[in-house]
Amino acid sequence: MNLILLEPGDFLSSDSAPDIAPDTVRISGRRYQHIIEVHRAEVGDTLRVGLLNGLIGDGEVIEHREGHIALQVSLKRESPAPLPLTLILALPRPKMLKRTLQNATALGAKKIYLINAYRVEKSYWQSPWLAASKLREQCVLGLEQAVDTQMPEIQLRKRFKPFVEDELPTIAADSRKLVAHPVTEQPCPVDIRQQTTLAIGPEGGFIPYEVEKLQEAGFESVHLGPRILRVETALPVLLSRLFPSN
Amino acid sequence: MNLILLEPGDFLSSDSAPDIAPDTVRISGRRYQHIIEVHRAEVGDTLRVGLLNGLIGDGEVIEHREGHIALQVSLKRESPAPLPLTLILALPRPKMLKRTLQNATALGAKKIYLINAYRVEKSYWQSPWLAASKLREQCVLGLEQAVDTQMPEIQLRKRFKPFVEDELPTIAADSRKLVAHPVTEQPCPVDIRQQTTLAIGPEGGFIPYEVEKLQEAGFESVHLGPRILRVETALPVLLSRLFPSN
Repeated sequence: MNLILLEPGDFLSSDSAPDIAPDTVRISGRRYQHIIEVHRAEVGDTLRVGLLNGLIGDGEVIEHREGHIALQVSLKRESPAPLPLTLILALPRPKMLKRTLQNATALGAKKIYLINAYRVEKSYWQSPWLAASKLREQCVLGLEQAVDTQMPEIQLRKRFKPFVEDELPTIAADSRKLVAHPVTEQPCPVDIRQQTTLAIGPEGGFIPYEVEKLQEAGFESVHLGPRILRVETALPVLLSRLFPSN
Repeated sequence: MNLILLEPGDFLSSDSAPDIAPDTVRISGRRYQHIIEVHRAEVGDTLRVGLLNGLIGDGEVIEHREGHIALQVSLKRESPAPLPLTLILALPRPKMLKRTLQNATALGAKKIYLINAYRVEKSYWQSPWLAASKLREQCVLGLEQAVDTQMPEIQLRKRFKPFVEDELPTIAADSRKLVAHPVTEQPCPVDIRQQTTLAIGPEGGFIPYEVEKLQEAGFESVHLGPRILRVETALPVLLSRLFPSN
């Protein structure tokens, strides 16, 4: 937790506590535990904080009672620039989904579509980790790790064909369209400096029909060399290659 | 398991089985289970195989009995080129160590030093995952994932200062020397096409004294932008940025 991510509800309103300044937050639960046990913060210490979808700054510990801590916060800096990216990701297996969402968020992805594909096992769509609150939890972990405040937007699409035919052309309009595919001639471009829509297949890859449908939608197939990487490794490799300056 | 990694002992010698060709292997255990349960291979099917530290090719299933399978192999292709890299990695926590070694191996690192640093918890050095056989297991998983056969060499160094002062100058001689460090001016270079020694700190980073010692040994500090990434994510990001053509 390199950033304590604050939400509007953490701020003490001057109505309920007229003697407390409006820039004061009170934190309990998971963040409190982390501040006490890992940061070992005491009154007078300063922590890095950020407001969800807002600015980043400092929070000074002004009170510590059993079960909660109060910080006086000062928010000044913008969060890091988002990647110019829309990510289209075949739904990974639940365990990998968590890490992949944390990673994608930490790397600065802000628009993520989790889609179906032939090699996505049907059971993955039943995972409790696909509940909006659970997806959000993973994104929060990614933001806290990367010192970012801008929550990604995640969409689920359980049908490949209507998504690619009807929705993807609009989503990917005016962007460079790439699909990571091991069996192709063209290497992944480096430092492309343009808005990009990147599709990544499931374990075992997209099947030829799916690659064809993506190509019909204007996607170029690109590879990452002879090595076959897991999605959770391929994702940082791809994003680092496409956007090394971000 | 995108490659069935074979060892010399898997080959049936013509002495013990005079009616069997010398290019035949017999496989049981973990690899057998995977071939049967995941690949669902049957007699006549062809699998991708590679000989440890040797060539890659095909293996045709010629026999399947309860508990083992026999393949007739034909090895032709070289394994993918290694990265021109020596990796100096502050020992990660055990859970992250496993993934990081798998990733480093899958990405093509062949020389890895796991070293101590101030922010490496002492208990990590007691981890059973540091046994040579356990380190090797993680590397095997990385090779099987990435379709590679060349086993990385891993060295453990429990004392930072003597390593950096006495050993590192020789290890890093004639290479570009980089240390990933968030608090620095210089961004990580892209596509450097030269032999490189890359040092990566623990969670929380190297302390200033350690960065100074590395700088005295000729290392340049480079950063990955404003985002702070976990080691397991920073590693593929760094390697992809330094060597996008590998």
